[in-house]
Amino acid sequence: MDIIDLKILKLLSVDAEMPMKEIGDKCGINSPSAISKRIKKLKEQNVIKSIRAEVDYSKFGLNFLAVTFIKAKYKKNYTDLLSGKLLKISGIITLLEILGEIDFVIITLNKDQEAYKENMRYLMSLDEIDRTDTRVVIENFMLCDFSKIDISEEFNIKISKL
Amino acid sequence: MDIIDLKILKLLSVDAEMPMKEIGDKCGINSPSAISKRIKKLKEQNVIKSIRAEVDYSKFGLNFLAVTFIKAKYKKNYTDLLSGKLLKISGIITLLEILGEIDFVIITLNKDQEAYKENMRYLMSLDEIDRTDTRVVIENFMLCDFSKIDISEEFNIKISKL
Amino acid sequence: MDIIDLKILKLLSVDAEMPMKEIGDKCGINSPSAISKRIKKLKEQNVIKSIRAEVDYSKFGLNFLAVTFIKAKYKKNYTDLLSGKLLKISGIITLLEILGEIDFVIITLNKDQEAYKENMRYLMSLDEIDRTDTRVVIENFMLCDFSKIDISEEFNIKISKL
Amino acid sequence: MDIIDLKILKLLSVDAEMPMKEIGDKCGINSPSAISKRIKKLKEQNVIKSIRAEVDYSKFGLNFLAVTFIKAKYKKNYTDLLSGKLLKISGIITLLEILGEIDFVIITLNKDQEAYKENMRYLMSLDEIDRTDTRVVIENFMLCDFSKIDISEEFNIKISKL
Amino acid sequence: MDIIDLKILKLLSVDAEMPMKEIGDKCGINSPSAISKRIKKLKEQNVIKSIRAEVDYSKFGLNFLAVTFIKAKYKKNYTDLLSGKLLKISGIITLLEILGEIDFVIITLNKDQEAYKENMRYLMSLDEIDRTDTRVVIENFMLCDFSKIDISEEFNIKISKL
Amino acid sequence: MDIIDLKILKLLSVDAEMPMKEIGDKCGINSPSAISKRIKKLKEQNVIKSIRAEVDYSKFGLNFLAVTFIKAKYKKNYTDLLSGKLLKISGIITLLEILGEIDFVIITLNKDQEAYKENMRYLMSLDEIDRTDTRVVIENFMLCDFSKIDISEEFNIKISKL
Amino acid sequence: MDIIDLKILKLLSVDAEMPMKEIGDKCGINSPSAISKRIKKLKEQNVIKSIRAEVDYSKFGLNFLAVTFIKAKYKKNYTDLLSGKLLKISGIITLLEILGEIDFVIITLNKDQEAYKENMRYLMSLDEIDRTDTRVVIENFMLCDFSKIDISEEFNIKISKL
Amino acid sequence: MDIIDLKILKLLSVDAEMPMKEIGDKCGINSPSAISKRIKKLKEQNVIKSIRAEVDYSKFGLNFLAVTFIKAKYKKNYTDLLSGKLLKISGIITLLEILGEIDFVIITLNKDQEAYKENMRYLMSLDEIDRTDTRVVIENFMLCDFSKIDISEEFNIKISKL
Repeated sequence: MDIIDLKILKLLSVDAEMPMKEIGDKCGINSPSAISKRIKKLKEQNVIKSIRAEVDYSKFGLNFLAVTFIKAKYKKNYTDLLSGKLLKISGIITLLEILGEIDFVIITLNKDQEAYKENMRYLMSLDEIDRTDTRVVIENFMLCDFSKIDISEEFNIKISKL
Repeated sequence: MDIIDLKILKLLSVDAEMPMKEIGDKCGINSPSAISKRIKKLKEQNVIKSIRAEVDYSKFGLNFLAVTFIKAKYKKNYTDLLSGKLLKISGIITLLEILGEIDFVIITLNKDQEAYKENMRYLMSLDEIDRTDTRVVIENFMLCDFSKIDISEEFNIKISKL
Repeated sequence: MDIIDLKILKLLSVDAEMPMKEIGDKCGINSPSAISKRIKKLKEQNVIKSIRAEVDYSKFGLNFLAVTFIKAKYKKNYTDLLSGKLLKISGIITLLEILGEIDFVIITLNKDQEAYKENMRYLMSLDEIDRTDTRVVIENFMLCDFSKIDISEEFNIKISKL
Repeated sequence: MDIIDLKILKLLSVDAEMPMKEIGDKCGINSPSAISKRIKKLKEQNVIKSIRAEVDYSKFGLNFLAVTFIKAKYKKNYTDLLSGKLLKISGIITLLEILGEIDFVIITLNKDQEAYKENMRYLMSLDEIDRTDTRVVIENFMLCDFSKIDISEEFNIKISKL
Repeated sequence: MDIIDLKILKLLSVDAEMPMKEIGDKCGINSPSAISKRIKKLKEQNVIKSIRAEVDYSKFGLNFLAVTFIKAKYKKNYTDLLSGKLLKISGIITLLEILGEIDFVIITLNKDQEAYKENMRYLMSLDEIDRTDTRVVIENFMLCDFSKIDISEEFNIKISKL
Repeated sequence: MDIIDLKILKLLSVDAEMPMKEIGDKCGINSPSAISKRIKKLKEQNVIKSIRAEVDYSKFGLNFLAVTFIKAKYKKNYTDLLSGKLLKISGIITLLEILGEIDFVIITLNKDQEAYKENMRYLMSLDEIDRTDTRVVIENFMLCDFSKIDISEEFNIKISKL
Repeated sequence: MDIIDLKILKLLSVDAEMPMKEIGDKCGINSPSAISKRIKKLKEQNVIKSIRAEVDYSKFGLNFLAVTFIKAKYKKNYTDLLSGKLLKISGIITLLEILGEIDFVIITLNKDQEAYKENMRYLMSLDEIDRTDTRVVIENFMLCDFSKIDISEEFNIKISKL
Repeated sequence: MDIIDLKILKLLSVDAEMPMKEIGDKCGINSPSAISKRIKKLKEQNVIKSIRAEVDYSKFGLNFLAVTFIKAKYKKNYTDLLSGKLLKISGIITLLEILGEIDFVIITLNKDQEAYKENMRYLMSLDEIDRTDTRVVIENFMLCDFSKIDISEEFNIKISKL
């Protein structure tokens, strides 16, 4: 893997349908088939995990974005048990276990607070949960946008280390 | 827009490279070109905002995922000013303004805590910030995965309302 | 329902005994019986839920106004169970279930803190409650006054949407 | 003022349009004009402050009920200054100054969280405010209902004291 | 009871050994036996609950003054049970049940933190306690000094009401 | 100072008017004048700081007992400045500076919450205060009672050390 | 023990391999064997508890320094039980029981957050723990350095008291 | 560096005066001079940073161990400024900057709380500090003891990676 691969990844993470020709131009390689071969390899190595369509859910009235903090009850193996149950929450996008006084952070996207109430009822019925705390998003400045991660710089550091 | 479009969106949000033929089969439509036309229209309407490659950043040693809570200082127009500055944080993926005692939630992905320290120094230098509180992610169960949003059900509700 | 209905509602929510003639003048309709008919319809549609006398309880020494925050214990169906029990608190005016680290907000009006103590003892005996937190009101600037809700503007928006 | 007056107040606080005859029956007084005279006197003494129509705002899409906690900045006369400004918040129903770590509790009714955001921006621009904390209501069990206040019992105590 | 009684109480609450003559002079009554009679009556009415020597405990190395906050577990009758047990804490001076997120405030005076540790162990063994939180006093500006309560003014108000 | 002095102090701290004869009996010394001499010496050494009448303030309607927590603003010499101002609060009984997230604990006794409100306004006007938090006492189990301090045991330890 | 001993301790606590000659010079004693004898005595009296090598663990990639706050569940003898279990945490350096809302503070040194996660899982499995809260160290300004304790001054005070 | 070095470090971090012969026996190397050479090299590489005497400060009445949490005010370069000032606190042993709602954790050892009060006054005078929160240690289970870090295991992992 070299700096060309990094440039390709950067481009594809913003627009995975960019023509091989254009990618080649931006990377200073004028063989579209060489680009194609590199992409194929990046997929085989699982560096590219998938190609996905980014849908605008607000177009369908999914407007209730919420951040929920979970304090788990402490018991042997409760983390595994609980994370499994949390992944079933309706509209879940993100589930992270963090250090500190909160154990999990969840981001969910639902139609409205009425729809979210079902999540609340579900959470309150789980034995492994001590407390939940849900905060309503009033402005979404950036959600799940990886394009600001300057992978070429980061990758360079990595590569120069090898 | 109908139930077929919804099924297509669902499929593409998981795998945007699925062959037209396969999509057609799953939607009960055996004309790949009809599927193709529908996708084109969904793109034109910006229902599909983009097609992106999902990169596995952990492959490059980007292992320090953190959730940062920001309390802003209160002043006229500080939200706009501050959100603009927060979007410049290195490795930022998500920036949400929420109701409650915290004003912003940020998710960042950096190489390690040393790299994150620069973010801390930057945040502490901003006049618009009262307090920050950063929690380190110790387990990433799900990050920015929209495939669990059952759009067909949600969209149906929406459609049946029209 | 039209803008005239909205104006009538606005007037009645402040003074439900305003003469039909006066209402008519303020709405630009000089038929008291037309106003009367409209009000009757608003009642039938339950837009007007009731006509109530607003009593000045401070005249009777009911001076201990308190806001109580409740954290519920989490268990299946506890919300329903608990809300039923909370509605029996002496002097209760308002009971809201909210998102966040507190589950319920209660407003009560009692004679004095001695009288309120019975509520405390009752709350502490309920199995469904984890913690309570009561704050004493030292100045009541506005309590349950709906006259500042600019219904005509809000309703217009609604109406223009239909 | 006697026990009859108390019974009348109790009845009117639930239904101010109850016929004099029916009120009389329930109070054991079979002279509608005597009831009428008593009510007139209660109004003159401002024991009955007003007669108001209770409107069902949810019928007009006013669905975003929120409880906001305010921490004021401490300065001479800030309470008066701030309370004046808080009373101008759109959709405000209740404003109480309380003892404890929060200074004010506000209840507001708005169309949706987008509409509430304007309130947030307004609050954040006020010099007299240190922090706000807004909690979204997900279930409204009781809002501004004074009928559960057992005035006859309370009033009796009061009367027996005189 | 009159203004003379109030003046006497004020004087005795600071120095209970003041000679009758001196008290009389300060109250404008030149009959020591009249003063004596009044004091006797104030004792009979339990307005004066006791005459006590105020000891300087710091002279004996009792230097560890602490304020302890207790959160009780909630159960029927736990307040009575718990308060009884808290009154047995070594060195306890004050025990108050308060409204808010803390249930009890305790002030204790012990020899040193080693001595206080026994209290901690005792508190942690009580079933009725959820959490304790002890704060060490680093400066004692005023402890149990009632002489600043301006009883004559307060009592006047009271008396003028009768 | 010996064990006899300690017994005398213990007795006087509960009842400073106990006859010399009775004190002598309880201490195993049958010379009232010897007791008298010892007490005189304890006063000269300021071990007995004063003899005070304990007044029952609730008899005069002083019913609003409150515990106030103060967070000071941090500045050079603010502690001295602020403590001086806090000692002027109406009805103050106790003022302690403590370690932890709260800087001062104050106990006050006032007529009612209306009277306390003046304290609140005063506190909010002080430049040296960041936040206040007042908790209302709903049950007074013990207030400023030093009789539970087992001085004889404590003093013995002290004495045996000399 | 005298001022010479104190100077010796001060020197050895920074460099325990300093030659006797050099120690003597710094203490104004030109007999190395006298110094040697003093050190021997300080060891016998356990004033010097041990001589230890200070290892630079960062040289071996032990970079994840964390501060963990523990809230214990309250039960008879839980402190002893729990402290015993906490001392088994991997990489533990410091374990202190403190007064306040947190019961224990722990400092640990581990390879990375992945390694620390095992500690988290262990802590969450302990019955005696209510909550943990772990904070990651981003800058280590001083860790376990006793050289700033000005023992000679402190010891002098002590000595002058004897 | 090999497994023998690790064993040596482990032994010296507990007892730096262990005879070469004994170290050799425990490491399976019967040449004291070889051990000696290895130790010399470890010192040259700064793996062994120093050899220090561990003093028992409690022998000198240094009994007030405290953990202090600092919230800094946020401003450009305040971390450097503040850390410099914090390192001057009397009796400081440890100063760590952490992520989360607290910025610094400090451990100090002083004679008593009176001595600590000077630290408090110093901290309160620093412009760069927003709040401090000090917790008194009531039991010291382990303080700055690195012997539980299983360096041989950790180092092996490290070594096997090279």
